[in-house]
Amino acid sequence: MKISARNQFKGTIIELKPGVVTAKVIIDIGGGNIISSVITMDSVDDLKLKPGDNVTAFIKSTEVMIGKE
Amino acid sequence: MKISARNQFKGTIIELKPGVVTAKVIIDIGGGNIISSVITMDSVDDLKLKPGDNVTAFIKSTEVMIGKE
Amino acid sequence: MKISARNQFKGTIIELKPGVVTAKVIIDIGGGNIISSVITMDSVDDLKLKPGDNVTAFIKSTEVMIGKE
Amino acid sequence: MKISARNQFKGTIIELKPGVVTAKVIIDIGGGNIISSVITMDSVDDLKLKPGDNVTAFIKSTEVMIGKE
Amino acid sequence: MKISARNQFKGTIIELKPGVVTAKVIIDIGGGNIISSVITMDSVDDLKLKPGDNVTAFIKSTEVMIGKE
Amino acid sequence: MKISARNQFKGTIIELKPGVVTAKVIIDIGGGNIISSVITMDSVDDLKLKPGDNVTAFIKSTEVMIGKE
Repeated sequence: MKISARNQFKGTIIELKPGVVTAKVIIDIGGGNIISSVITMDSVDDLKLKPGDNVTAFIKSTEVMIGKE
Repeated sequence: MKISARNQFKGTIIELKPGVVTAKVIIDIGGGNIISSVITMDSVDDLKLKPGDNVTAFIKSTEVMIGKE
Repeated sequence: MKISARNQFKGTIIELKPGVVTAKVIIDIGGGNIISSVITMDSVDDLKLKPGDNVTAFIKSTEVMIGKE
Repeated sequence: MKISARNQFKGTIIELKPGVVTAKVIIDIGGGNIISSVITMDSVDDLKLKPGDNVTAFIKSTEVMIGKE
Repeated sequence: MKISARNQFKGTIIELKPGVVTAKVIIDIGGGNIISSVITMDSVDDLKLKPGDNVTAFIKSTEVMIGKE
Repeated sequence: MKISARNQFKGTIIELKPGVVTAKVIIDIGGGNIISSVITMDSVDDLKLKPGDNVTAFIKSTEVMIGKE
């Protein structure tokens, strides 16, 4: 399946911190770049996410802000 | 100023397509990774964005989805 | 691939209105429910979206608001 | 009051899981479709949300992604 | 109807710029504060929005970032 | 640094409620207006946020909905 989100980064889960409703998932996408994600615990359980998993991070273009010095 | 968004990627604008209300801005963040952003034309004008500009892309953790094979 | 977004609705594209940077895509998910989406023209081109296509709409739980009388 | 969000689904709360800052609210919108929402505990308290409540889920068009096989 | 969005600001539309798919709506909420919104042209038409209208801006808490010097 | 987000409100943190993964931050922006934000605990720690801090709230235009009576 192709997904419309223009930002798709393959990486590996290096940290997963469960909360009550949401969880934090940290993904190493290489090149020294790390992505931090907050998803539901339901998603963590459904996808059986755990450190070491190969995953893809998806981000819609409309969610990206830009800063300039 | 420090920004709360956990995902901050420094890069260079390699494409800027103006629309009527919004614009598309493509940023090369290195390591073979490209970020696509849709922001308002007002922001493009206010920050005087143009190809070649060094910028930072900001993305909240809550906006990141995860896919797993 | 399984996607973390908790809201996933299968349906058929019944309208696609192209803009300059973004496009509107209307999806019939059955049961009398219609979903309206705004995505980039780049996504429309990449996925070759057109009316009649069978697609899935994905929405993160954090993007859903609730109203009560 | 009319709300600009193009996606508005009437339904019934079938599950409400409180967390510390956020809560998960599951809404049955009929036709076999379920909507998962994460909102603040403040909202749960302010709207006095509980299972069985008739509510409306609101989602902006810009928050909908599309996938195609 | 009460809405779960924790940020609700009453104001007056002072500018409305139509695009193809989306429109920019500028709202004066008083106290010297202005809110900029991008919504669909469908919403503008459905709510018959125009400068001078009294409206309420709604923003989910999860969409607010924080910066600190 | 200038940020593309069109909505930027300076204010003072008047409440900070930590959770497990996320935290609630309430900001008084003056003129009788209060902003509620949900950010990660990681951001709270990284920016050393606490009540009394002078901060800026950032909100993208695409995240603002409009209601009209």
